[in-house]
Amino acid sequence: MSKQMNVDVAIIGAGTGGMYALREVRRTKQSFVLIDSGPLGTTCARVGCMPSKVALHIAEYWNSQKEFERYGISGSEHLRLDSAVAWQALRDQRDQFSDGAAGNAKKAAGEHLIMGRARFLEPTLLEVESESSTQQINAKSVIIAAGSRPVMPEFLQPFAEYCITTDEFFEMQELPKSIGILGLGAIGLEMGLALARLGVEVHGADMAQTVGGITDPEVSNVALAEFGKEMQLYLGAPAELAKAEKGVLLKAGDKEVLVDKVLVALGRRPNTDQLNLAEAGFELDERGQPLFNPNTLQVGKHPVFIVGDINGYRPLMHEAADEGAMAGYNATQSTPVAFKRKTSLAIAFTNPDVISVGARFDELNQDDVLIGTATSQANGRSRVITDRQGVLRLYADKSSGTLLGASMVGVRAEHVAQLLALAIERNETAHSLLQLAFYHPVVEEIIQSALQDIARHIPDPAGLPFGLVLADV
Amino acid sequence: MSKQMNVDVAIIGAGTGGMYALREVRRTKQSFVLIDSGPLGTTCARVGCMPSKVALHIAEYWNSQKEFERYGISGSEHLRLDSAVAWQALRDQRDQFSDGAAGNAKKAAGEHLIMGRARFLEPTLLEVESESSTQQINAKSVIIAAGSRPVMPEFLQPFAEYCITTDEFFEMQELPKSIGILGLGAIGLEMGLALARLGVEVHGADMAQTVGGITDPEVSNVALAEFGKEMQLYLGAPAELAKAEKGVLLKAGDKEVLVDKVLVALGRRPNTDQLNLAEAGFELDERGQPLFNPNTLQVGKHPVFIVGDINGYRPLMHEAADEGAMAGYNATQSTPVAFKRKTSLAIAFTNPDVISVGARFDELNQDDVLIGTATSQANGRSRVITDRQGVLRLYADKSSGTLLGASMVGVRAEHVAQLLALAIERNETAHSLLQLAFYHPVVEEIIQSALQDIARHIPDPAGLPFGLVLADV
Repeated sequence: MSKQMNVDVAIIGAGTGGMYALREVRRTKQSFVLIDSGPLGTTCARVGCMPSKVALHIAEYWNSQKEFERYGISGSEHLRLDSAVAWQALRDQRDQFSDGAAGNAKKAAGEHLIMGRARFLEPTLLEVESESSTQQINAKSVIIAAGSRPVMPEFLQPFAEYCITTDEFFEMQELPKSIGILGLGAIGLEMGLALARLGVEVHGADMAQTVGGITDPEVSNVALAEFGKEMQLYLGAPAELAKAEKGVLLKAGDKEVLVDKVLVALGRRPNTDQLNLAEAGFELDERGQPLFNPNTLQVGKHPVFIVGDINGYRPLMHEAADEGAMAGYNATQSTPVAFKRKTSLAIAFTNPDVISVGARFDELNQDDVLIGTATSQANGRSRVITDRQGVLRLYADKSSGTLLGASMVGVRAEHVAQLLALAIERNETAHSLLQLAFYHPVVEEIIQSALQDIARHIPDPAGLPFGLVLADV
Repeated sequence: MSKQMNVDVAIIGAGTGGMYALREVRRTKQSFVLIDSGPLGTTCARVGCMPSKVALHIAEYWNSQKEFERYGISGSEHLRLDSAVAWQALRDQRDQFSDGAAGNAKKAAGEHLIMGRARFLEPTLLEVESESSTQQINAKSVIIAAGSRPVMPEFLQPFAEYCITTDEFFEMQELPKSIGILGLGAIGLEMGLALARLGVEVHGADMAQTVGGITDPEVSNVALAEFGKEMQLYLGAPAELAKAEKGVLLKAGDKEVLVDKVLVALGRRPNTDQLNLAEAGFELDERGQPLFNPNTLQVGKHPVFIVGDINGYRPLMHEAADEGAMAGYNATQSTPVAFKRKTSLAIAFTNPDVISVGARFDELNQDDVLIGTATSQANGRSRVITDRQGVLRLYADKSSGTLLGASMVGVRAEHVAQLLALAIERNETAHSLLQLAFYHPVVEEIIQSALQDIARHIPDPAGLPFGLVLADV
């Protein structure tokens, strides 16, 4: 017969969401267990944000030689890349991040960390199967933070030997000569470009007519022109694979190409299917996801909360952190409270980066919106850094000038995104944000240009020069 | 006898301040002349912000080979730098910027551009000496935007053949083997580091015990440790030069070193001495500067306004732009209005950058301030980009948590500066700014860390997790 344990809060998953939840639970001194099926270390640190940034960073170094001649640096024909060394360096740095995350989990949970696989028997009764034993955990509340895993569709099974996901991508012992990328969302795009810059022949396919989830047609045009210089793009048609004598054939639309490997970057699926939710009495939607409130994170009326990738709402590290904190707080209160969600923010670190802040182009009624446009080519600092094209499109309410959202592809757009996230969170208008001091020459001045493009269509009642306000008397 | 002309507004100087003034004057359709003694093109574009950024950019490319081995890139021993080609590439790009600025001036002023040297006869009567003629201009109001020039102290005259300023720096036909830098403000530091990264032996001296105008001791310590790895620093003692058989001796404190050249980066002096101000009836201070109001830019009670470097108030491009707009507006109104000045903002693009936003450490009463500290080593993205050290110090009011200022040295700190400039301009507190979504992994997360370091000392009355607020019901 299995052991049984009673706790105030059981947290399933020691990733980002679970760890932020734990922080709040520990503040209340309530009893808890943290359950993880391993390996410890967050998705972000192990196979996500961090190793992908290292890959892009290494790729920038190797790629920089293309600019050498222009600046009087000769001899780059003697440079050689040992991709095995590069990828080992990547793993070494990745391990620092994931070991750090794993260590944090052990330290924060201490003896309350259970390495094992949890499933629900009832909404507040869990069964946890560890290597040596099975135990039941009876919790006053439960936080589900069990993460996600890469999607690997059935039709790719016959080609399993050629297909990798981000779970294997960073484990490669050397880089392939050529690779197909299925799915050009942020991850597929980032990893495809990293490989292209490291000299791999890259063929990227996506059902959409764009990349990186861009919905603004002007931003999409620039992105496709820029990224199309580095990898072959196969857009707007379903891709499939076919057997070949050596390697595998990637087919999309009327094109086909032979590649050594295929990176499957079709997104991540929530691990909800591993938790026995339906049988335990949770109401699920047609995709098998439990119904939950994104402001309380509560699942139905149960004292159960679901956070991070597994709820499928905003599968991003910073959102998982927020949701963890919200759920950790609510799990320890008698009545859950509803939290405000932050301005949405997405960045692909593709250099030129692809960003989206606040409302997307396709979410706006174009009749109600003024769009301010500015290009990287008209931004002094961007021109110093790169010849590459870029465009910022800034969406504002037509009558008030209130900033609603932005889409951009461009060098260092990640920083433009952070600044605009604050501006949009605070309901700044085109005129009010022009009051910000923009140092010269910074890439962020592109915001100033786009703001002026909006502001000139919205008369400032004070009639003062752009960005100036009267002193308090 | 000289010609005489009557105009509404005379603008002296077609640099940044003058051009922003002109924009406002043109909006009113008042008559104007724009007078410039040449060469056209702003200080920023010709000898300031822009070519210095190009120099730093080229230097980063050459310097990047230091990281090559770590990432499996071999063969860098075969790389060669032809500094003549590098500096010509710099000038080519610089010329695009300065030709653009010059073209803007010609286009905006058209036939109202007078190339000549202006001096005051009376507060609203100018004499302009051109190549072919001298004319008098009688203006209803005058905007002084005549800029600045590099300081070249008397004691350096005997060493003139070795000394250059930023006027000559970008004209070098090849780089020296070694150079002394007199003055380690933003310009001296930026150019010293650019040269050091291009393989020049650099010896930098400053009277201060710090560099880049840093007043926060913790930031200064990190900056000195980092920059001291790249150039020899001679701090806290007056530097002098002495004759040598070949080159020139740079002496500072008890140290001396032989260098090929000396970059004199002791600041820029306002061109007020060229305008005949005292004789024309302006009241001057002990440094020969006219008394003016920084909110109206008005000089005394005259219909005369002084903007940009020449007023000595905030000699930065973005401030000159604002002042130009303020003066252009006020010069065309019956009564000048007082404008609010923006949060002060300074950036040295030294990678790690040195930034200052809002109140400086030495301007604050330490008893009233909480300081939040965060390091680049604890910031994931910074660690991916570089091993270099960095620290952010964020100053907040002890009781309210309102952000007052920040000082930082660190990778991509320029972007931290822009975001904090908005936060400080808007009186954000440590708790309120934590409500911003920080994407992961961005360098700006260092702000989040410093905010938490402050917020944990200021209980949030709502008792919610950091950065969370309740949804509007």
